[in-house]
Amino acid sequence: MSAPHQNSAPSPRPHAVALVSGGLDSAVAAACLVAEGAVLDTLAVNYGQRCQAELDAASAVARHLGARSHRVVAVDLRAIGGSSLTADVDVPKDRSEHEIGTGVPSTYVPARNTILLSLALGLAEVLGADQLVIGANALDYSGYPDCRGPFLDAFARLANEATAAGSEGRSRFRVRAPLLTMSKAEIVRRGTELDVPFGLTMSCYDPFEEAQGWAHCGRCDSCALRRAGFATASIPDPTRYAATSGGPHS
Amino acid sequence: MSAPHQNSAPSPRPHAVALVSGGLDSAVAAACLVAEGAVLDTLAVNYGQRCQAELDAASAVARHLGARSHRVVAVDLRAIGGSSLTADVDVPKDRSEHEIGTGVPSTYVPARNTILLSLALGLAEVLGADQLVIGANALDYSGYPDCRGPFLDAFARLANEATAAGSEGRSRFRVRAPLLTMSKAEIVRRGTELDVPFGLTMSCYDPFEEAQGWAHCGRCDSCALRRAGFATASIPDPTRYAATSGGPHS
Repeated sequence: MSAPHQNSAPSPRPHAVALVSGGLDSAVAAACLVAEGAVLDTLAVNYGQRCQAELDAASAVARHLGARSHRVVAVDLRAIGGSSLTADVDVPKDRSEHEIGTGVPSTYVPARNTILLSLALGLAEVLGADQLVIGANALDYSGYPDCRGPFLDAFARLANEATAAGSEGRSRFRVRAPLLTMSKAEIVRRGTELDVPFGLTMSCYDPFEEAQGWAHCGRCDSCALRRAGFATASIPDPTRYAATSGGPHS
Repeated sequence: MSAPHQNSAPSPRPHAVALVSGGLDSAVAAACLVAEGAVLDTLAVNYGQRCQAELDAASAVARHLGARSHRVVAVDLRAIGGSSLTADVDVPKDRSEHEIGTGVPSTYVPARNTILLSLALGLAEVLGADQLVIGANALDYSGYPDCRGPFLDAFARLANEATAAGSEGRSRFRVRAPLLTMSKAEIVRRGTELDVPFGLTMSCYDPFEEAQGWAHCGRCDSCALRRAGFATASIPDPTRYAATSGGPHS
């Protein structure tokens, strides 16, 4: 369809494909685009995580944010290996914030954000969206090479070479990482302003299924950062932690 | 392990992760790296193609080329849609070479090569490989935006930003597309020099299962280009075409 009044047409709404993991960060990132007035479609990628909890959370978050569509793409990264999130090794527990911030952690999934953004790009091309949204943020900087500005810039350049829409100049893709320079506490504050349903999100690398539903373990790196974020922001933490989270891993 | 004689150590062999589709082009591309003396690991991606024939061919080609390992990663691109290769629409048949060369064909899979190279990058990082090999070539130029030099260059830049090995300077990834400027006839000639087992390869978008095994349809764009390549190169075509390939599609 062509615009009926080409000269006076208002700027079209931005159209975003947001990667939602079910976690807190990606929910806030997607909510930032909604706050900008973007049309939102969401994509969850099941890359062989240990359980269904994150996917359930991703779907609940998408519904809450008013996503026009929500899709799940399965990609079996276990065939590639190299991470405790996709292989059968223990997730690190009870590490201090200092330990969490050093080196590439064992939960690093090789080329993960490249793979996630590639899938988002494919969906964006199909839907005619021009913004790829990812919850990458500063806390991940030290450990994850694919959570930094130069990576995201390189992906945007790639996207415009990779696609019919980009290479024909019909669309210029942008990679949006609105949390990139935020601390976890800032993310919690921003999410609170945007009414993000934190209680629906799931950040844990090793959640427990309890009678009331999924609970966070409270002890993995991701739980530790999440807890500290709410505490530092002085915002009540609605997360349900497993009953055993204070004691030894049962 | 550190090199015992660091100053006099010979250059290490290149180590390649080659994407093999089961088709003729990717087999020749991988064989080019073997001819350079590279250590070879192969990766086939099952992205919801219509049948098993290509995956069987990919595995047979990997074995023939002496790959150290062969993996299959499943990624369900049907959830994204947008292509007659992954969606339930007819593959175009009986088009002339002129028709094949114009526009973005319906068999274009959105962001396909970005997704394939991302997966190869993840595997390369796990295995310590530094070369990503893809069978992209000149014939695909006109229709597929992600089969051109600028795309491949953009991916190499991305790879070095995306990974621990690249960003820490331990490895500089190269994207190798040795067929990029070759015609199909040149690819057939090069593959013949390198002893590529063309009879094991499967190029067809819509193969037929016959009593003797998989046969090419002989009528889709990919079969038409394959046939013409052997004819132009004046090299006997070992491809088994379906008995019905001369008549109407049954």
